[in-house]
Amino acid sequence: MKIRAAVLEEFAKPLVVQDVELQGPQRGEVLVRLVACGVCHTDMYTASGVDPSGYAPTVLGHEGAGVVEAVGEGVTSLAVGDHVVTLFSPQCRECVHCVSDKTNICLAIREEQGKGHLPDGTTRLSRIGDGGEPIRHFMGTSTFAEATVMPEIALAKVDPEAPLDRACLFACGLSTGLGAAMNTAKVEAGSFVVVFGAGMVGLGAVAGARLQGAERIVCVDLSADRLELAKGQGATDVMVGGPDAVDEILEMTGGFGADYTFEATGNVKVMQQAVEAARMGWGLCTVTGVAGKGETLDVIPRYLITGRRVAGSSFGGVKGRDQVPQLVDRYMAGDIDVDAFISHRITLDEVNKGFDLMHAADGIRSVIEFA
Amino acid sequence: MKIRAAVLEEFAKPLVVQDVELQGPQRGEVLVRLVACGVCHTDMYTASGVDPSGYAPTVLGHEGAGVVEAVGEGVTSLAVGDHVVTLFSPQCRECVHCVSDKTNICLAIREEQGKGHLPDGTTRLSRIGDGGEPIRHFMGTSTFAEATVMPEIALAKVDPEAPLDRACLFACGLSTGLGAAMNTAKVEAGSFVVVFGAGMVGLGAVAGARLQGAERIVCVDLSADRLELAKGQGATDVMVGGPDAVDEILEMTGGFGADYTFEATGNVKVMQQAVEAARMGWGLCTVTGVAGKGETLDVIPRYLITGRRVAGSSFGGVKGRDQVPQLVDRYMAGDIDVDAFISHRITLDEVNKGFDLMHAADGIRSVIEFA
Ligand SMILES: [Zn+2]
Ligand SMILES: [Zn+2]
Ligand SMILES: [Zn+2]
Ligand SMILES: [Zn+2]
Repeated sequence: MKIRAAVLEEFAKPLVVQDVELQGPQRGEVLVRLVACGVCHTDMYTASGVDPSGYAPTVLGHEGAGVVEAVGEGVTSLAVGDHVVTLFSPQCRECVHCVSDKTNICLAIREEQGKGHLPDGTTRLSRIGDGGEPIRHFMGTSTFAEATVMPEIALAKVDPEAPLDRACLFACGLSTGLGAAMNTAKVEAGSFVVVFGAGMVGLGAVAGARLQGAERIVCVDLSADRLELAKGQGATDVMVGGPDAVDEILEMTGGFGADYTFEATGNVKVMQQAVEAARMGWGLCTVTGVAGKGETLDVIPRYLITGRRVAGSSFGGVKGRDQVPQLVDRYMAGDIDVDAFISHRITLDEVNKGFDLMHAADGIRSVIEFA
Repeated sequence: MKIRAAVLEEFAKPLVVQDVELQGPQRGEVLVRLVACGVCHTDMYTASGVDPSGYAPTVLGHEGAGVVEAVGEGVTSLAVGDHVVTLFSPQCRECVHCVSDKTNICLAIREEQGKGHLPDGTTRLSRIGDGGEPIRHFMGTSTFAEATVMPEIALAKVDPEAPLDRACLFACGLSTGLGAAMNTAKVEAGSFVVVFGAGMVGLGAVAGARLQGAERIVCVDLSADRLELAKGQGATDVMVGGPDAVDEILEMTGGFGADYTFEATGNVKVMQQAVEAARMGWGLCTVTGVAGKGETLDVIPRYLITGRRVAGSSFGGVKGRDQVPQLVDRYMAGDIDVDAFISHRITLDEVNKGFDLMHAADGIRSVIEFA
């Protein structure tokens, strides 16, 4: 079938929205008609060419939500008409990681996904016309497109009542932030929490800390607008970031530091602050931001010896097929204000405008709505 | 009373063994007649003058075991004749840390102990003679002496059948290593464990991992003699350290890394190896070594994001009064081979020889036996 898609043709150039060929689903695969898709820093990062593992041409996009249009042979957990959220972090339920409750990093299709292939090593995307050049998938999702073909294990079936233009945000940063607080750190009720960064992930961590019953949630960011959003998600205190942030947090906690800190900026200096703002004795610093190549988080070992811990999480430790539907249910129950994250609604043809808005730090998320 | 003690008179000079004055125990304090005391790197580090928080004159020593000779007013948990191990890490059982099961860092007397004082802000040690200059305590213990006065909350009452020349080793490194594996990391049965460093702490961690039921325990060190000792404590594999250590561990674990790693060298490059040798998904690196001033552990954030965690522990997370007696009981039950750690037995007058042996990396522990 012919679909419209935003193709990364060349690094550091605008995406080219064009018709491409999409083959139908093979064994274990599912054809999804996209309804909405968030525009994320990871898409922009790959488009920039800075990511050493990036490749082109490819159809970008990974924060998708849509409706199942067809299923391949052997697909048992999804049927035509199901509403789904796309998962760049799949859940096969069989590998050594999936059967462990300690991690959400599924090993089943890691390698092929990293190469831009579906699990069988091929691609369903190609240039228009017979024998058209193959186009690689991106993050196993390629949701900057009217439709996509994805492995069954990378789709979370969600409540059909959930509006898909909100549900799509659970495909990435929002679940990452919520999960960092709820799964990775397992914030305890009554805790003192600090979240560095009020982007999508940081705001998700604020919301997650609130859902866990934290007593104080301090959000640190440079933008007054974002800090306002943080209050809306449950931050009890906000703070403009800077070199004094750690001292200010120590002052707020009788010199001890916070029970839990979260880093959601990708800035290694901020990561260091998140470690040093964690409490002597039991403070846990959870790192979620992706740092630049070659950059390191420099930890003074004394901070560890005196009882601080550092953890990281990928996709918030969320096992996608099991837990994304649960998070969407919490949204439907009124526990999470997703609307506040959507700053712009655009069409697929306006995808580069989505990048521009992000570059200008204008709002949290642009969501592409498909006609 | 007049006692013989090893005084640090001047940094970077040999200790001077001499008579000093020891006042009797005040309220909440206990007079202990020392029977044995280990000579530790921390004593030597302070003597060297490199530790910025060090001071002189002071009576060094902190790995003591002895017999209660007198108790001050209000002391209820100890009586004359009790056998005790000294605790540089006290347990008041009342502070916010002591009532938490998350940390062993008691806050009760931290500040005064750091200044070389007993909790009331004074010292029981002084030069011989009326109005003799006060001499400060060290780590709240000062056990390079025939007797010492310590707070009740800093003494662990142990099985009177336990030989005190072995029990003294539970005052520091041995408990630190055992506790790092048993309390901080809580090594799970069947795990793959790597311990970097085969000094007292590292060997304790090997023994602790064995007691927790680890399946594979790899010990990494530069000394063949120490690696032999590691085998005696339960290491299933030994490895000579070097730049390839991480690769070798990845190879032994199908590319994944170890479930638990322990760092017991104080070398920040080795700490980094311990982080990178930990398993994707859930590997926990526990740091126990004290690094040099200004040195940092540089962590590539990607290692965290993909599921590794870093923790530290002080005194192995051991709550001294509760848990040191339990560890001594495990020794008495035959679970821990303490004899293997004692390489030299010396007199108090030979204390500087203890430092020389340590400097030459000759054996694991010299134990001072008091006449
Ligand atoms: Zn994203
Ligand atoms: Zn899996
Ligand atoms: Zn205490
Ligand atoms: Zn020691």
